[in-house]
Amino acid sequence: MKKNEIDHLVVEWLAQAKKMVFSSSSRKIMVETKTSRNDLVTELDRQIEKFLVTQIKNVFPTAQIISEESHPKLDEFDPQQLLWIIDPIDGTMNFVKTRRDFAIMIGVYQNNQGQLGYIYDVMNDCLYHGGPEKGVFCNQQRLLPPANLSLNQGLLETGALMLLHNRCNLQKIALASNGVRIYGSAGIQIIRVLTGQAVGYVSHLKPWDLAAGRVLAETLGLTVKTIDGHIPDVLSSVDVLVASKNAQEDIVRMAQAPY
Amino acid sequence: MKKNEIDHLVVEWLAQAKKMVFSSSSRKIMVETKTSRNDLVTELDRQIEKFLVTQIKNVFPTAQIISEESHPKLDEFDPQQLLWIIDPIDGTMNFVKTRRDFAIMIGVYQNNQGQLGYIYDVMNDCLYHGGPEKGVFCNQQRLLPPANLSLNQGLLETGALMLLHNRCNLQKIALASNGVRIYGSAGIQIIRVLTGQAVGYVSHLKPWDLAAGRVLAETLGLTVKTIDGHIPDVLSSVDVLVASKNAQEDIVRMAQAPY
Repeated sequence: MKKNEIDHLVVEWLAQAKKMVFSSSSRKIMVETKTSRNDLVTELDRQIEKFLVTQIKNVFPTAQIISEESHPKLDEFDPQQLLWIIDPIDGTMNFVKTRRDFAIMIGVYQNNQGQLGYIYDVMNDCLYHGGPEKGVFCNQQRLLPPANLSLNQGLLETGALMLLHNRCNLQKIALASNGVRIYGSAGIQIIRVLTGQAVGYVSHLKPWDLAAGRVLAETLGLTVKTIDGHIPDVLSSVDVLVASKNAQEDIVRMAQAPY
Repeated sequence: MKKNEIDHLVVEWLAQAKKMVFSSSSRKIMVETKTSRNDLVTELDRQIEKFLVTQIKNVFPTAQIISEESHPKLDEFDPQQLLWIIDPIDGTMNFVKTRRDFAIMIGVYQNNQGQLGYIYDVMNDCLYHGGPEKGVFCNQQRLLPPANLSLNQGLLETGALMLLHNRCNLQKIALASNGVRIYGSAGIQIIRVLTGQAVGYVSHLKPWDLAAGRVLAETLGLTVKTIDGHIPDVLSSVDVLVASKNAQEDIVRMAQAPY
């Protein structure tokens, strides 16, 4: 199947998933904790995941799928086949507490190369989508590559734990930026880098946190590297930096400086 | 003049100010730095401030007005007269970098008591307004007092500098919450406490950062105290906590514990 045919299917599935989100808003949502009291999963995460996995398997019976809420061993994949990486609700805490700033995310990879990426900011009805063949769009509007700003010319997106533990000299890096923003969702914060609202996003990310945003960021000419400057493996969990090229150089240099 | 007559006037002025914001979006905005490279003022701050001050003085020729961009000595005020406290653009860095998450704010005080408060989230067209006589509204919808949650039951809003300098044990307090959010605007972050999306907001605030939100928060039964548990003076710059009563008790206790 061609990329644009896959693309049409995914856009349709996400429109269905949006209806599930809005239908959930009118009722009380079941919430459970996972690895810690602040690591949540809701029935909506599971419902959207099940829906997307079912749709993908209907069309691609041999599809390889990794999803946040149920993933097989990460070393059993054939890189030459399409790999689907799904986060049914990125920012579950935000969904539970605020009903805003969460995203549905899908990344499609082959041979460790991003083919298609989708970050759906559901409450603002903004679907960021695209890939190397078609470019990146917010709904129907094409995104231009953001300006190649330095760290001291823009806002820095990150997470609270990384900042307060000062991992990778992040406190010094934060002070060199125009200010820190913490939204509690990888997808929403990567959107801010894609659109040039922030110069970089630093966080410890799992494969499903990064897969979609990585395709979109790389397509727009942004860098996606580990904090020590290496290319992250699609299936690894690592400290990742999504940034303009200049901000990436500034941050990697400061992250490696003595504490 | 009665409160509800003042209220009608202010709502009309804010509708005019909104037009100034949208008209500014179509052109390049002049930006200057103030006390540091990340403390900005734009021509729009000055334009909205001038407009609001002019409107207030037209109706109340002897009005006492404090505004972020031009304020007289803070000890010359007669507390028995109406005091207007204005932040023409709260979150100027956000306005410059992202065109979202900024607010126009007005607080009206008499005898050190909040009478009317206005936080206008312009880009979402949500005006939070009210006071002890009429209650608190988002546009036409009345807000109910948020649940009296503890710190470990909700999100904590703050600013990056306070967090990374660990002022008032804030890192430990942050870890006890459900997560930290940093939006870069006192008004936008106080809205999150007013609406129950967060249990508290901690920050070092100037009079114009707090005046509007304080009226609305106190009207909804939230506490507005200094971080060491005292009632803040309307004209002082202090470390302030806007929170549910239970979260306030948790935070004050932890802020005073040994480091």
